[in-house]
Amino acid sequence: MAAAAPLLLITCGDPAGIGPEVVALAWNQTEPHRGARLRVVADADMLAEVLDRRPGLPAATIEPVDLADPRPSQPGELLVVAPSQITTPGLPPTGDERPAAIDDGVVSAAGGRAAGAAVEAAARAVLAGDAAAIVTGPLHKEALHAAGYRVPGHTELFARACGLPDDAASMMLWLPGAGGRTPLGVVHATLHESLRSALERLSSEGIAAAGRRLAAGLTPLLGRSPRLAVAALNPHGGEGGLFGDEESRLIEPAVARLAAEGLDVVGPLPADTLFARAFGGAFDGVVALYHDQGHIPVKLLGMHRAVNITLGLPIVRTSVAHGTAFDIVGRGLADPASLLAAIDAARRIVAASGR
Amino acid sequence: MAAAAPLLLITCGDPAGIGPEVVALAWNQTEPHRGARLRVVADADMLAEVLDRRPGLPAATIEPVDLADPRPSQPGELLVVAPSQITTPGLPPTGDERPAAIDDGVVSAAGGRAAGAAVEAAARAVLAGDAAAIVTGPLHKEALHAAGYRVPGHTELFARACGLPDDAASMMLWLPGAGGRTPLGVVHATLHESLRSALERLSSEGIAAAGRRLAAGLTPLLGRSPRLAVAALNPHGGEGGLFGDEESRLIEPAVARLAAEGLDVVGPLPADTLFARAFGGAFDGVVALYHDQGHIPVKLLGMHRAVNITLGLPIVRTSVAHGTAFDIVGRGLADPASLLAAIDAARRIVAASGR
Repeated sequence: MAAAAPLLLITCGDPAGIGPEVVALAWNQTEPHRGARLRVVADADMLAEVLDRRPGLPAATIEPVDLADPRPSQPGELLVVAPSQITTPGLPPTGDERPAAIDDGVVSAAGGRAAGAAVEAAARAVLAGDAAAIVTGPLHKEALHAAGYRVPGHTELFARACGLPDDAASMMLWLPGAGGRTPLGVVHATLHESLRSALERLSSEGIAAAGRRLAAGLTPLLGRSPRLAVAALNPHGGEGGLFGDEESRLIEPAVARLAAEGLDVVGPLPADTLFARAFGGAFDGVVALYHDQGHIPVKLLGMHRAVNITLGLPIVRTSVAHGTAFDIVGRGLADPASLLAAIDAARRIVAASGR
Repeated sequence: MAAAAPLLLITCGDPAGIGPEVVALAWNQTEPHRGARLRVVADADMLAEVLDRRPGLPAATIEPVDLADPRPSQPGELLVVAPSQITTPGLPPTGDERPAAIDDGVVSAAGGRAAGAAVEAAARAVLAGDAAAIVTGPLHKEALHAAGYRVPGHTELFARACGLPDDAASMMLWLPGAGGRTPLGVVHATLHESLRSALERLSSEGIAAAGRRLAAGLTPLLGRSPRLAVAALNPHGGEGGLFGDEESRLIEPAVARLAAEGLDVVGPLPADTLFARAFGGAFDGVVALYHDQGHIPVKLLGMHRAVNITLGLPIVRTSVAHGTAFDIVGRGLADPASLLAAIDAARRIVAASGR
């Protein structure tokens, strides 16, 4: 008998956002259930209530199940595991008080509490070996803060759930191939800070570290060693020193070091043509030096398909790259493409790692 | 009798690059000849020699003509005006010595001289009112320098030909609509300098000036007042001050000033989603704060179709946005899309200005 397909836990993120909608839409397709057993980690009553009032969603029953339930998942029947069901010996269970009413499109502590409880429970299940990976919907930082979670964001919540410092985890932006374009992974050397601060903090060591994370993140997705490029910082790649010296001072040494470590990597390459070349198939991954350098091209080509993949943690976690989109909640406009891509990425990483 | 269609002068740029090829390819289409009489400004013998040895080009005769020749242009017959034919009373004529042999794909003083002479002659003709606009192919800065032109680039060459200081001219990047995307114009608040220098020099006044240039550049192309957006500098638009203060300190005042002057403008908007919104039809133009912020998205969606439009000069001049592409010269790979778009833009600006 073949081993059971790996168990993938999906969290809806903030229930006031489009998370529950994209989960219901993705679940209704057959593709994500291939080679995986899906579960939604949520309070079943709350999820039913939220989905009931959102128009245009596929008909589906909501079936509360235990984490240990071996059944496969399929469209038409959402298999839901309550956060409170997931306990670890020696740790207090996640609270199971019935969440307060959630208003669509509104920041609330109740929404943040529901989102946070699902994330904590899912992390716990994967750490305990009871599930293979987590795929997360979009949460809202303010709601999380209102619920008492003192974390900068989603990724740090996972780092803490794994008992690690916030900076242990980092993110790879992943855009699956489509429309003649090849897939692309992007890791940033600097991320959530001002451009001025990014310029001050940019270092050869930081760029090399981003390159190593990128290679590690891409290898399981591709099933081979990736071809990497490092973006230049300045216009025209610095125009031979005329427009800045970071290319020769910081980036070239980082690329040389990565190459010496055996990675297939080139750079610095002018950023304004690099991404067209990468999406054309020249590279599998790009080290971006600051937030917008990586996010502008990826969001432009894949606003609804991009995925965040967490690196550096002992658990497999992928996430939608979009937000809660409070402005379109319940309007039939939410697109499950990013969640579907995140499920696919998680499945591939799990398969490659033999989890 | 209807007035003759306006005369548009095309320069090939550096003859060792793909310029002559894209001119021959564009000329062979019927569309660019509609509502315009096209002329190539070049040495006819040199052009014939260069085109003869490039495979895969459409058959066409080369017909030397005077600038005053009224005939319409059409595919199959390249109408070529010699730079030395274009003289201005009181100014020495452009040299008409036969250019030295040009090697494809190689930087040479001869190539730079041919490119520079064509540009100077074309500018002279338009300044004298003998032609309506100039559309330029790609030149090579090193070749221009080797030929003794001490200018930073193409645009400054035009500024000097108009008797103006280098910084009188600026550039709008223009991407015509295609594939469900609407057209977009981009003007940069800072451009050819290091990112560090751009950050230091960024000012509210500079951003407002870029917005005014953008509005002035777009109005004739659109035939109406444009809807503009100004990009944010920092990730997530500064995240409410957490990631930098340039949004509130520099950008918001600039947007307020432009709005007070009657422009339809919003911002600062996070750069990583702004361009997808703009190409989706929300805005006609974007003020980018630094080179790559504008060039990454435009080149990603329109590597072969983007156009440079010169602003601030008393002449209409548009240009291909690509380079000489020495690596693909004569290989049948050159794409005339950018030149065709540049011809179309010049024609529209001329029509709007009643020249």
